[in-house]
Amino acid sequence: MAEVARAAHVSLQTVSNALNAPERVRADTLARVLAAIDKLGYQPNQVARSLRTRRTRHIGYRLDPDRSDTASVLQDRFLHALTTAAESAGHRVLLFSSGGISAELTCYEDMLRTGSVDGFVLSGIDPGDPRPAWLAERGAAFACFGRPDPDSNYLWVDVDGAAGTQAAVDHLVAAGHREIGFLGWSSTSGPGEQRRRGWLRALQRHGLRPDHHITALDTLQDGTRAALELLGRAPTITAIVAASDTFALGCYAAARSVGREIGRELAVIGVDDSPTASLVTPALTSVRQPLEEVAKEVMSLLVAKLKDQRVQHNGIVLAPSLMIRESA
Amino acid sequence: MAEVARAAHVSLQTVSNALNAPERVRADTLARVLAAIDKLGYQPNQVARSLRTRRTRHIGYRLDPDRSDTASVLQDRFLHALTTAAESAGHRVLLFSSGGISAELTCYEDMLRTGSVDGFVLSGIDPGDPRPAWLAERGAAFACFGRPDPDSNYLWVDVDGAAGTQAAVDHLVAAGHREIGFLGWSSTSGPGEQRRRGWLRALQRHGLRPDHHITALDTLQDGTRAALELLGRAPTITAIVAASDTFALGCYAAARSVGREIGRELAVIGVDDSPTASLVTPALTSVRQPLEEVAKEVMSLLVAKLKDQRVQHNGIVLAPSLMIRESA
Repeated sequence: MAEVARAAHVSLQTVSNALNAPERVRADTLARVLAAIDKLGYQPNQVARSLRTRRTRHIGYRLDPDRSDTASVLQDRFLHALTTAAESAGHRVLLFSSGGISAELTCYEDMLRTGSVDGFVLSGIDPGDPRPAWLAERGAAFACFGRPDPDSNYLWVDVDGAAGTQAAVDHLVAAGHREIGFLGWSSTSGPGEQRRRGWLRALQRHGLRPDHHITALDTLQDGTRAALELLGRAPTITAIVAASDTFALGCYAAARSVGREIGRELAVIGVDDSPTASLVTPALTSVRQPLEEVAKEVMSLLVAKLKDQRVQHNGIVLAPSLMIRESA
Repeated sequence: MAEVARAAHVSLQTVSNALNAPERVRADTLARVLAAIDKLGYQPNQVARSLRTRRTRHIGYRLDPDRSDTASVLQDRFLHALTTAAESAGHRVLLFSSGGISAELTCYEDMLRTGSVDGFVLSGIDPGDPRPAWLAERGAAFACFGRPDPDSNYLWVDVDGAAGTQAAVDHLVAAGHREIGFLGWSSTSGPGEQRRRGWLRALQRHGLRPDHHITALDTLQDGTRAALELLGRAPTITAIVAASDTFALGCYAAARSVGREIGRELAVIGVDDSPTASLVTPALTSVRQPLEEVAKEVMSLLVAKLKDQRVQHNGIVLAPSLMIRESA
């Protein structure tokens, strides 16, 4: 900076203003400083700048352990979208991983104390999650993908899970299906419950009975077992809405073992639109979350928070879309 | 630091030594300084520390644009492994994304100039890649996943792609197959060529003729088309080794349309062990790359470089393994 100041015949403060508050510098002076910066190839050191501004322009994001399953793939799609959205907002994503929740809080604490990031993006948040309150108590800036405690004023973006399974039922009813089963998780809150409720409400709206549903653990094996049980109990159902693509593929395996052809003799719709959905035969119809839009909205909430700007709504709900393929 | 120095009745330099070179501090003095640090809850600011040490402990990694396909999923599995390996070595991963190669070089340049990272991990490197030479010219520390120019002395870790398809052929021959086709990319270098060569050499070793092979673009549609053509041209083949899981699933679609049952009437082996492999029915036998080990070795090469330590070998080749499921 001193070299730039000498070359442009200005003070150090003027160089600093040219970089950080150009509106305070006279146009001809600014042009001279910028020419000197250009000629000398001066580039502010990001670390020195961070120390001065107390801004790193880094956003902390926790990468869940790799589970090599659909949920992990979904998270990765979100991370891609977040990296792009963060860059558009002038930030970069700093990753960390941790085992359990207490290790995660230790990571947050460490990153806050050492000033390594400006704020955090959290994902997989539901009303019972302790992380938002923990971060809020420490004055940390953060925004959530998922829905925190409705009584809180945390910033969040979520996808309307009920709208996704409602759209799935509407699509099936339009194709003539009347007995439509549901395969979901046993949880009574969060995304699983939203998805079950969407199926239930849509059936009721169409005057159909929500008689056939079953729960399972989110694995292919347990999903297959549950789908077999559902088909055994209710052989007249012609379609199944599954709460995840993993469950939908469990329906594929179950249909195969009872000799029913997916698409023609049993319609199946999944949720997540994982890469697998378009790779299987027949290709899987699935509910897709608008993760690129989620990432953009999460970043814009977080940036508003970092700039101490008011936001119009502290929570934003986005609609999913149905990717129609061959299975339904 | 000044508060700690006052509380412990020592100089600022002694506090600094206690933190950065404790062996230079007398045991009783060190105990007093550490007690004061503990009592005051002092934590060095990471940014200030980075400015002094010229080390950020951040590793830059480029996240490819999300393509929602097998290759992207494989990269994500590597990123998970890299995040964990970096943390074990005291580093965090700073993500960036960029469109083409020139945008990527601009990102590297920006991160180097601003001192945002200590070094880079590159993935998807093959001999013709311009990135390693570009970074080396600028004195940047980096390590590659993939094989750079063999005449260079860059640091790299790669997986022996030929060994994977050789293991696939050995497995098929042991099960009685004699006519084994290959579905690969049309590239004549890099991973695609390694995989083709492994298939070729294994057949020759078993005294079998490598007559039936075909190339395609790495999409499900083109893989399906090529598999159909291969099965049409050579209806006597009983097994196909596919250069990717996407191609293997193209074989599933092709087999279905000609009425051959995968596993019983046509054996198929893929490469990548994507999440899809274990979700499809029948489950796909696939070659798995040891990405956790790759990430560990890449990080240890990079850390050695950052510490100016000599490494025993500048290139490390790891062996893949065959995940045997139902399709072969």
